[in-house]
Amino acid sequence: MSKTGSNKIPPPKGTRDLYPQDLLRQRYITEAWRRVSIRHGFEEIAGPTFEMLDLYKKKSGEGIVSELFSFTRAGGDDDYALRPEFTPTLARMYAEHAKQLPSPCKWFTAGPYFRAEKPQRGRLREFLQWNCDVMGMESCIADAEILVVIEDLVGHLGLPEDSLGFRISDRNVVERMLIESGVASNDVPKAFAFLDKMWKMPEQEWAKSLSDAGLPEAISESVKNWATAMILIGGPRVKNPVEPPGQPFVPDSIQDIANLLASKGSAEFYSIDLTIVRGLAYYTGTVFELIADGERAVAGGGRYDNLIELFGGPPTPAVGFGMGDVVLGLLLEDKGLMPEGPELMDALSQKPASIRPEAFVIANEEGEQHIEPLLAQLRRGTERDGFDGKPWDPARYETQPMHARRTYKSTKNIGKLLADARKQHAKFAVIIENTSDAKIENLDTREEVGVFPIDEVAGALATQIGG
Amino acid sequence: MSKTGSNKIPPPKGTRDLYPQDLLRQRYITEAWRRVSIRHGFEEIAGPTFEMLDLYKKKSGEGIVSELFSFTRAGGDDDYALRPEFTPTLARMYAEHAKQLPSPCKWFTAGPYFRAEKPQRGRLREFLQWNCDVMGMESCIADAEILVVIEDLVGHLGLPEDSLGFRISDRNVVERMLIESGVASNDVPKAFAFLDKMWKMPEQEWAKSLSDAGLPEAISESVKNWATAMILIGGPRVKNPVEPPGQPFVPDSIQDIANLLASKGSAEFYSIDLTIVRGLAYYTGTVFELIADGERAVAGGGRYDNLIELFGGPPTPAVGFGMGDVVLGLLLEDKGLMPEGPELMDALSQKPASIRPEAFVIANEEGEQHIEPLLAQLRRGTERDGFDGKPWDPARYETQPMHARRTYKSTKNIGKLLADARKQHAKFAVIIENTSDAKIENLDTREEVGVFPIDEVAGALATQIGG
Repeated sequence: MSKTGSNKIPPPKGTRDLYPQDLLRQRYITEAWRRVSIRHGFEEIAGPTFEMLDLYKKKSGEGIVSELFSFTRAGGDDDYALRPEFTPTLARMYAEHAKQLPSPCKWFTAGPYFRAEKPQRGRLREFLQWNCDVMGMESCIADAEILVVIEDLVGHLGLPEDSLGFRISDRNVVERMLIESGVASNDVPKAFAFLDKMWKMPEQEWAKSLSDAGLPEAISESVKNWATAMILIGGPRVKNPVEPPGQPFVPDSIQDIANLLASKGSAEFYSIDLTIVRGLAYYTGTVFELIADGERAVAGGGRYDNLIELFGGPPTPAVGFGMGDVVLGLLLEDKGLMPEGPELMDALSQKPASIRPEAFVIANEEGEQHIEPLLAQLRRGTERDGFDGKPWDPARYETQPMHARRTYKSTKNIGKLLADARKQHAKFAVIIENTSDAKIENLDTREEVGVFPIDEVAGALATQIGG
Repeated sequence: MSKTGSNKIPPPKGTRDLYPQDLLRQRYITEAWRRVSIRHGFEEIAGPTFEMLDLYKKKSGEGIVSELFSFTRAGGDDDYALRPEFTPTLARMYAEHAKQLPSPCKWFTAGPYFRAEKPQRGRLREFLQWNCDVMGMESCIADAEILVVIEDLVGHLGLPEDSLGFRISDRNVVERMLIESGVASNDVPKAFAFLDKMWKMPEQEWAKSLSDAGLPEAISESVKNWATAMILIGGPRVKNPVEPPGQPFVPDSIQDIANLLASKGSAEFYSIDLTIVRGLAYYTGTVFELIADGERAVAGGGRYDNLIELFGGPPTPAVGFGMGDVVLGLLLEDKGLMPEGPELMDALSQKPASIRPEAFVIANEEGEQHIEPLLAQLRRGTERDGFDGKPWDPARYETQPMHARRTYKSTKNIGKLLADARKQHAKFAVIIENTSDAKIENLDTREEVGVFPIDEVAGALATQIGG
């Protein structure tokens, strides 16, 4: 056989060979995903890398099915496909054991996914994706949790806030507005597909694309109005979405989420953009994208309240997102936020997030208003002198971020809530029974650590955990 | 649509849905793989989950090709396959950048693999596999390194030594003996295939299987002699393979490895078994399996000195192994060595191995004999009161295991070797220039830490690193 290299077999197009330095860079991303997920109380799961082809054919929508790598086993009858996304697997897994699972159920996963599309910058045929999902919670507390996980990841990686923004929409609202623009009810999915690809074509092609699809041209005007409305509300970033200057397009559902985000200190990061509908067929309500530098989608997700039932489970509201490693990696490189050499090696040698919850926050009626702000602070940690625009470094924190959970139960029976905290193997309980201070209890020793003003709880817990 | 569950789509046969507790158990295994690999100076890489079908057709042998999941892309011409093993990808990656890679080059990887075989206990269609490989080193130092990585993994997990043993063989020796038994040269691959599956069938079927394959029945007698010889040498465990009681079947190549293992304090774990040839076509010399409870193969590997050249690279000796997560997981469960609940959560919340080497051991001619024993001690750590038969717990160590490397260069120029250590971002150099003590130098500050008797080096380094 010749030694000239003519017998070299190339890697498949759109896949990556990761040599040691490349692999460390990818692990910098996946370790960040894992740290932030765990701190926010998500538990890791995993499914098969391939699934029965039917799992995608029935529920994901045409866009994704046309990009599947599908196959059979020699001598077998079954059709399989490499997974293009995680949500159908998650719905299948949840449906299978719905009765035994906690409510809400918070899961994360990170692994390889596959799409047989044309490879280009930011789009590969094999990539990693991070998913977080909250199942079994109708309240927009779940939507807000999902959004803030992404926000904390962005903060953890030091991405400058002014280069990124969330655009939030609600499919129910968009559907109502499309119908008002003259779209027939059963053409709504077609109109969603048009909206999803709209920004990828020049404006003058919209009208043609609309009439080709048999949609009324009036949509075109409406969409332009929505886009203008979005800009009125504040462009890629809304300074204060709780009280937008012009509010024709602030649906109640999004206003409720915005209020929750404000209570977490997160409001400045979000804007409303009713041109966002997402490409997947199964979304039912809130949908959102994290956009970098005004154009690239770094993450996307939304509500899919019917999907678990469609897979044979009980009716179960659910909301989640996916984020790929390819666009995020390019963004970190572009911003100079990917550490190199010994700094990268040191970042990957730090203690991981604690799998046991370090704090479990409960309250009676009087203290309840403090749960969300405190939870957000514990999960984020407090920075010594700003983090924005610098790669992750644990030395930057005054108080390290920690794994913090809260009760989602409506009961105010402190004894019952403490039992829940113990069942989840939490180390410390934070009990808020008034508007000024909180009691910390060590759940392993069952001893009281002390009573602290609420804004000193994070520091007191950090001292306990560090020791 | 009905809610009775009739619309449930099952996961593919032979794959796993990992719920939070299952996932933690799997991570207990993958984190152990990662820790041990890094400590031994292996650098992590990753390849695509699928490859061009040709990559396996040409080199892996018929056994594996018949078990491939192969597929095409709709509208595309290329044939792909889900990877059944890592070695062809590794050979392709090494060949592509051979000139820029260090020599020796030590890589590890852990990820999903796929075989379309009938699922059964310990054998799934999708599983994780850990691979470590040393490329570019002809010396049996590489073979010994590969064996000791597996041994340290077994020790890290607390698997009792008397339930496990390595069986080592050498394909060149087996080939010579087969030819002596009357096998024609070009029937040797067929005879290897027979040997590989021999123990899976009842003894009375051997002869029939041999004549069906057109092989001389004389092999049957030879094989029985080899099996007997193996038992003479010590059964599943050899007490002292360096001086076996009966040595007709101790080839020089294996004796050299045994001597190295003895210098690392590892000899008691190994036996010689010339019935081991491994199923893959590309092995060229040493082959081995780690057998649990006298029957299950937990890991296997060997030398494949021609493979990188076959993939278009320069002639490159190489040796490596693979270990799956399924059999290992069953073994840990069977032995009660898989932690549960908060113990499992705590084990997964510990600091990982340092990606920067913590110690880099160099020596002049006088000190050279101390390199291997010291390296083995640093990588293993010293135990407080025995580890065997208990799940991993960092509190068990007197001195924590560390990431230690050595020079493989023949130069004794200490200045040049220190420059190599700095290039690899090592934190401390251990310099041995006589037979009794060693100097520790902090490579970041370029200050001498002190001179210590060789058996106190591990403790002195642990103090430096801990501080």
